[in-house]
Amino acid sequence: MNNSIIRYVLGQVIRIEGLLLLLPCLTAVYYREPQGWYFLLTAVICMVVGSLLSIRKPKSTVFYLKEGCIATALSWIVLSLLGCLPFYLCGDIPSFTDALFETISGFTTTGASILSNVEALSRCSLFWRSFTHWIGGMGVLVFLMAIIPLSGGSNINLMRAESPGPSVGKLVPKMRSTARILYLIYFGMTIAEIILLLVGNMPLFDSVTTAFGTAGTGGFGIKNDSFMSYSPYLQWVVTIFMALFGINFNAYYFLLFRQFKKAFDLEEVRYYLLIIVGAVAIIFFDILHMTAGVFDALTQSAFQVASIITTTGFSTANFDLWPQTSRTILVLLMFIGACAGSTGGGIKVSRIVMLVKTVFLELHSYIHPKSIRKVKMDGKPVTHEIIRSLNAYFVTFILVFIASVFALSFEGYDLVTNFTAVAATINNIGPGLSLVGPVENFGFFNLFSKYVLMFDMLAGRLELFPLLILFHPTVWKELLTCRRKPKKR
Amino acid sequence: MNNSIIRYVLGQVIRIEGLLLLLPCLTAVYYREPQGWYFLLTAVICMVVGSLLSIRKPKSTVFYLKEGCIATALSWIVLSLLGCLPFYLCGDIPSFTDALFETISGFTTTGASILSNVEALSRCSLFWRSFTHWIGGMGVLVFLMAIIPLSGGSNINLMRAESPGPSVGKLVPKMRSTARILYLIYFGMTIAEIILLLVGNMPLFDSVTTAFGTAGTGGFGIKNDSFMSYSPYLQWVVTIFMALFGINFNAYYFLLFRQFKKAFDLEEVRYYLLIIVGAVAIIFFDILHMTAGVFDALTQSAFQVASIITTTGFSTANFDLWPQTSRTILVLLMFIGACAGSTGGGIKVSRIVMLVKTVFLELHSYIHPKSIRKVKMDGKPVTHEIIRSLNAYFVTFILVFIASVFALSFEGYDLVTNFTAVAATINNIGPGLSLVGPVENFGFFNLFSKYVLMFDMLAGRLELFPLLILFHPTVWKELLTCRRKPKKR
Repeated sequence: MNNSIIRYVLGQVIRIEGLLLLLPCLTAVYYREPQGWYFLLTAVICMVVGSLLSIRKPKSTVFYLKEGCIATALSWIVLSLLGCLPFYLCGDIPSFTDALFETISGFTTTGASILSNVEALSRCSLFWRSFTHWIGGMGVLVFLMAIIPLSGGSNINLMRAESPGPSVGKLVPKMRSTARILYLIYFGMTIAEIILLLVGNMPLFDSVTTAFGTAGTGGFGIKNDSFMSYSPYLQWVVTIFMALFGINFNAYYFLLFRQFKKAFDLEEVRYYLLIIVGAVAIIFFDILHMTAGVFDALTQSAFQVASIITTTGFSTANFDLWPQTSRTILVLLMFIGACAGSTGGGIKVSRIVMLVKTVFLELHSYIHPKSIRKVKMDGKPVTHEIIRSLNAYFVTFILVFIASVFALSFEGYDLVTNFTAVAATINNIGPGLSLVGPVENFGFFNLFSKYVLMFDMLAGRLELFPLLILFHPTVWKELLTCRRKPKKR
Repeated sequence: MNNSIIRYVLGQVIRIEGLLLLLPCLTAVYYREPQGWYFLLTAVICMVVGSLLSIRKPKSTVFYLKEGCIATALSWIVLSLLGCLPFYLCGDIPSFTDALFETISGFTTTGASILSNVEALSRCSLFWRSFTHWIGGMGVLVFLMAIIPLSGGSNINLMRAESPGPSVGKLVPKMRSTARILYLIYFGMTIAEIILLLVGNMPLFDSVTTAFGTAGTGGFGIKNDSFMSYSPYLQWVVTIFMALFGINFNAYYFLLFRQFKKAFDLEEVRYYLLIIVGAVAIIFFDILHMTAGVFDALTQSAFQVASIITTTGFSTANFDLWPQTSRTILVLLMFIGACAGSTGGGIKVSRIVMLVKTVFLELHSYIHPKSIRKVKMDGKPVTHEIIRSLNAYFVTFILVFIASVFALSFEGYDLVTNFTAVAATINNIGPGLSLVGPVENFGFFNLFSKYVLMFDMLAGRLELFPLLILFHPTVWKELLTCRRKPKKR
């Protein structure tokens, strides 16, 4: 295994985190908050450690899928461990586990919080908390690729490990350009949302943090009631942007380069929008009698559907009190998730579509045993390899899900709490139902359960295998042998 | 499509049902119950209709998988429609839907009941109710094959459609002999259980009906408290027989022909026993404080685990009151189910084992991308075809499951009720948790939900595809054209 490249990538990632930590420092300067010193301290630590790790260039830049996965998984873990330090040191979150939970929840764009009183946090902590969503949404390694030339060409494996979805397409021949275009679109859309929120008279700080949460499909709010107290205009702006950030970014790329036909032909996006419309329609009629009228019902159902399917997790209503049909739909949406290649989590619409297609194909093969048909997406046949890994992903997802629900069961809370707590973390949503409903938080779980849920958040964001291979004994043996080698020379 | 063979098989199945209905008639004679007349009436109807349908031999006995699936699905539906008549006519179950629910629950060996007071039923109804389990357990088409020579040789497609599990093995070259051997083992083990129950001073009627319920892994009891009032000896006899009937019958075949090594080498059986031991151990410690002592805790945990994993559904304790860990384990066992080639339901241990193996293989492929490994069962590589249809099965299972939970949600009961009601029916178990817990029943659901659950029971017993293809438009077109054809000639 090429350990030097893993070390180098890790170092660069930590350095970038150091740089990014300067933004909350600026926030602290603006609001004159003493907590800013701890952000500065962490930033310095990151920059020193990161520079030390990446000072020596790797001997070889050869980069296989294995290295890509390990570098990604380790990066995300280290990012979270360092990123939680300011919360813990400045005393805003007094428990280290809670600080780590909150940070992982941030970077993985989950938005599940252990805080019961968000408004008590300092401004710089709130900023960093929402900013982690923005960083985690598009991915820090994609960012790294966009700014640092990692020659060798095989760094698509880094992107493959970090980017959500069954298949990662290069938009342009060069990975670096692809990463830059993605971040450009991401940045532009975030700015657009901030402006539209400012137009609706939302204060600048609220606008920026809300836009971060929406863009990363994260869900950390800066108010205790999430989004309930904002005006309908602001709620609709956020609804629309949540839905937009859940769309495959390839569509925006095509639009940007005026390939309109290609953009509108994306099968996944069409199903995604269809599911949203369907879910909103059913929930609208289901909750109509509980709301202040047609407009209110539509606003509430659209907001919650967009929030859950994109796995953002903002809420404008306590949907735990909604009728059973609506609650069941929301639980289903939790699993479906957003489009591949978006910032959203969940299983992803394209995976669901392909899985459903394999079912129809199987049914077809019972009736016409000799016909040879293949699953198609966007008109092109899907390779056997993708179907195989799709199935493996799905089964693994279910297994990790079951194991997590079982692990949580030791605490003795009800099945709905355990089930939706795991669903909300592994799909990177945030709120679940019952004890982890939209007006509750995850603070009551014990240490063990919290670490299980942290694992689920990372596993969900990295799409299982990059994180799971860290538990493979071979990987550790290779990682440790490599660490010892440099000393000998 | 060869419709004449479907008609012929259907006719024979109905005739057999007519014959089998004579047994509850005998029960009625013995107990001098007037309800027996309705059983006799139904028996006569069956024999007349069946004879009319099967009077003309099919022109061709060619039998493909499609015909096998359709014949099986239609047989099971017709069997249930006719089998529920006596319950309805004699007034023991005044609603037709309820009678149908109870009969489908019987034939599919689910054991979910809509009756709140079982003890009020006539003896002949109770007998028929339990006897449907025995018939459904091994399968009526397998029975048909055992007694009627269906030349043509391709009738393995009938068995494949009806027998549970990912792959159906012929034990001996001739299907007919295989079917006979299976029924011989089945019959022998049922007799053995009846004798052991009689030894424990259980009345003959109770012993026979209990043995029927155990053998078919059904779960209909003849007492309102299921099995709670019986002695620990009787509970242990049933525990052991439930576990035995959940084992792949191939193992017994090997034992019968003294191929001991082959019998003990069956990977699925070993995992099955391992899961049972593990589950009993965890639940034992979890419920120890709630029970009368070590022996009681062991008896209760072993009985419930054996009952749920084999999808029988007898109960000696209201496990809905157990701690969350135990309840979660029981829900997991509901899905795992028994071995393939047994009378039990659920996803089946071999499927779970293979699915888990594909996950490890996928993980392995991330670390050694160039290695070519295959999933193995019993030391032999599993064909790509089986893995593909296994994945299709699993995805279909989840989709049908989700759709059913969603359909039930309209009634507004809690998620645990809906979730476990579907789990208990699609896996052919019987009791679930919450409102459908072991001391409750399914009577409170409305008509729509009951039909959804009936569909789930049939889908679960026939392993989805044979039932699902009935909904394919092509199938209906072909079935109807064929019915019209004979008139022309």
